[in-house]
Amino acid sequence: MKLSQIGELSLLEHIRRTFSRKAKDIIVGIGDDAAVVNPSGKRILFTTDMMAEGVHFDLRFVTAYQLGFKLISVNVSDIYAMAGKPSYVLITIAVHHTTRTEFINNFFQGVEAALKLYKIVLIGGDVSSAVNDIALSATVIGYAENVIQRSGARAGDRLYVTGPLGDSACGLALLKQIGSTVPLQVTRSVTGLKQAVGYRKLRSYLSRQGLSWKMTEPLLRRHLMPEAKMPKQWRRNATAMIDVSDGLLIDLSRLCNESRVGARLYEEKIPISAEMNKAASCLGLSPLTLALSGGEDYELLFTAPPGKKVRALCIGDITESRRIIVDSAGSERPFSAEGYQHFGNENTI
Amino acid sequence: MKLSQIGELSLLEHIRRTFSRKAKDIIVGIGDDAAVVNPSGKRILFTTDMMAEGVHFDLRFVTAYQLGFKLISVNVSDIYAMAGKPSYVLITIAVHHTTRTEFINNFFQGVEAALKLYKIVLIGGDVSSAVNDIALSATVIGYAENVIQRSGARAGDRLYVTGPLGDSACGLALLKQIGSTVPLQVTRSVTGLKQAVGYRKLRSYLSRQGLSWKMTEPLLRRHLMPEAKMPKQWRRNATAMIDVSDGLLIDLSRLCNESRVGARLYEEKIPISAEMNKAASCLGLSPLTLALSGGEDYELLFTAPPGKKVRALCIGDITESRRIIVDSAGSERPFSAEGYQHFGNENTI
Repeated sequence: MKLSQIGELSLLEHIRRTFSRKAKDIIVGIGDDAAVVNPSGKRILFTTDMMAEGVHFDLRFVTAYQLGFKLISVNVSDIYAMAGKPSYVLITIAVHHTTRTEFINNFFQGVEAALKLYKIVLIGGDVSSAVNDIALSATVIGYAENVIQRSGARAGDRLYVTGPLGDSACGLALLKQIGSTVPLQVTRSVTGLKQAVGYRKLRSYLSRQGLSWKMTEPLLRRHLMPEAKMPKQWRRNATAMIDVSDGLLIDLSRLCNESRVGARLYEEKIPISAEMNKAASCLGLSPLTLALSGGEDYELLFTAPPGKKVRALCIGDITESRRIIVDSAGSERPFSAEGYQHFGNENTI
Repeated sequence: MKLSQIGELSLLEHIRRTFSRKAKDIIVGIGDDAAVVNPSGKRILFTTDMMAEGVHFDLRFVTAYQLGFKLISVNVSDIYAMAGKPSYVLITIAVHHTTRTEFINNFFQGVEAALKLYKIVLIGGDVSSAVNDIALSATVIGYAENVIQRSGARAGDRLYVTGPLGDSACGLALLKQIGSTVPLQVTRSVTGLKQAVGYRKLRSYLSRQGLSWKMTEPLLRRHLMPEAKMPKQWRRNATAMIDVSDGLLIDLSRLCNESRVGARLYEEKIPISAEMNKAASCLGLSPLTLALSGGEDYELLFTAPPGKKVRALCIGDITESRRIIVDSAGSERPFSAEGYQHFGNENTI
C-alpha cells in the first residue's frame, strides 16, 4: 500500500499508538501542538516542524529570507498554541552543494529577524548537503506555567478565532499569478521594491487586475512571512486551543477529535478581510472557501466557557458531537476535515 | 560563490558568530555536540541531526528499519558525548507520496528498537511528503548534572578513544561491494537471513572474497546500526569529549579547536579491529586510513589528565599547539581535518 492510498487509516494515528508510552515526567506526549515535559516542577515545551521544497514551498515564489522567517514562525506558532513562551530553537537545513552562499546567508537573516521578533535564541542545528530538494526543519523549545491543550473543549463552550482567515491561501494564489518572488522583508516598508527581481511582473500583474500594492501586500505577507499569534489575554479563559495551520476545518476537526466534541460554525461570523474579499473575487475564488479550507494563517482557534468576556471573534460553539456549518440563511450542513493534508492524513506526530 | 567552493571560510563559523548571543540560562549554545540550558537548576540538553537520502544514505544498501535505528543512535551519541543522559526525541520525516507504508512501518520499528535500547521516549515530530529525496531529522533532549564540553582539554592531557575505529567505513565499503541491503536487525541473530532480499548476493560476494559472515557482520552492523557509546565511568575524569562521527582526524581537530590546543597521535596505538584489518585488505583499502578518516564509528574521543586511571585506549596526548601523527618508526607528520565534510566544512551548528 502506498502512502497516497491510505485514506482514512491514518499513518500518524498508527505512529501515535505505537509510541504512546508514558514516562512519569511527560505531561503531554505525541498528539498535540508541542510536547511538554516537567523536569523538577518546570514545564518545558518542544515542537518540531519541517518544510520540504516542492511540498511546502516553491523557490519561484519565495525568497530564502522569507523561508527562514517562516520556518521559525510556524514552529513558534505551535508553542503559542499551547499557551507557551518560546525560548530556544534548533534548525536543520539540507541544501544542494551548488546552492549559493547568498541563499544560506539570506535564509539565516530571515531566521534572525524571526528570532528577534519572538525573542528566542538559536541553540543548535545541523547543516547538510542534499541531492535534490531543500529540506528544512526546526525544533522550538518553550516554557509554560499552564498549558492549554486541544482536548479541553466542552459542549456549550464558545468557539473563537483571533483574526481573519484565508488571507494566506489568497496570498499564495496571488503569488502564483504574479509568477515570481516578492521582496517582502520583516519591516513593513518594502526596501528597494523597484530594484527587486520580479518588480515588473508584480506591477504589471497588479495594474492588469486593478489591484493596489497596499491591498495585496498584507495578503502576500500573510503567506510569505506569517507572524505567530501570541496567546496573550486569551489564555486566561481558553479551555482548548490550536493554531490554524492546515485550514479552519482541519484544525477545528482536530480540536473536536481531541476533545471528543462537535462544533457548530456560523458562516457569516467567519472573519474575512476586506483585502482578501477583493483579491479573491479578482482571482475568481470563493472567499468563504479560502477561509474554511485555506491553510497557514497561524491564527489561534480556541474555546472558552459561555459568559466569559473574550476579546476575540466568536465564530460558533461546541456541541456534543454534531459538526455543522450554518449558512447565512440558517441552513445547516455537516463539515469534515478539508484542506491541505500530506498523504491525506494528519502530519504532526 | 557556491557552498562547494567555500573552502576554509566556514559557513558554520559564520552562522555561529551570527547567533552567538547568550541568554542567561544557556550553559552551552552553538558549537558543541548538544545545546545545554539550565531551567531552575536542572540542565537540559538538546541536539539535532539530519540524514538526507543520497548524502547520508543510499536505499540500495540500507533498510528503513536500519535508518530509523541509526537516526536515533547518531543523535543519542551527541548527548552521550556531553556526558548527558538522553530522555526524549522528536522526529521529522519527509518521504515521497508513493513511498510504501511498509517502509514507514519498518522505519518506525527501527526507531522503536533504538528507543528501547537507550530508554528514551518519542515525544513529537512531523511527517511530510517530499518531491524527490527522503529527509530525516531528529532532536534528542537529555539531562546532565555536569556536562563535558569539547573545550576542556589542556596540554599534557592524555587522549583516549573508547573502541576500534574505521569499522563503519569498512562496513560501508563492504556493502557497496555486496551491492544490496543486508537484513541486520537489533538482535544479534539475523532473523530470516536466508529468506532475505540480497542473501544470494551477500553469500556469493563473501565466498568469492574468502570472508565469513561472522567476520563481516560486526563491520556491517557498525555502519548500518551503530550503537552510541554511553560515557559511563569515563565521565568522571574526562576534561573534554566528542563523539567520532565524521572521522578521527576531523573530530580530534574540532576538539583541539575548541580547547585551543594541539595533539600528538600515535599511529600504532590507534585501535583497529581484527575484522576490519582483514576485510580492508580484501578490499584493497588501508586499515589506518579508514581508522583515521572513516566516519560514523560513534566511539567517544576524550581527554583526561595524566595520572588518572582511565579504562579506555590511550592513543596520544594533548600538546600546546602542534598537531602531529607519529608513525611506528617514530617519524612525525602534521595532520589536519580530513574525512567526510558536507561542503568541505563543519556541519553541526
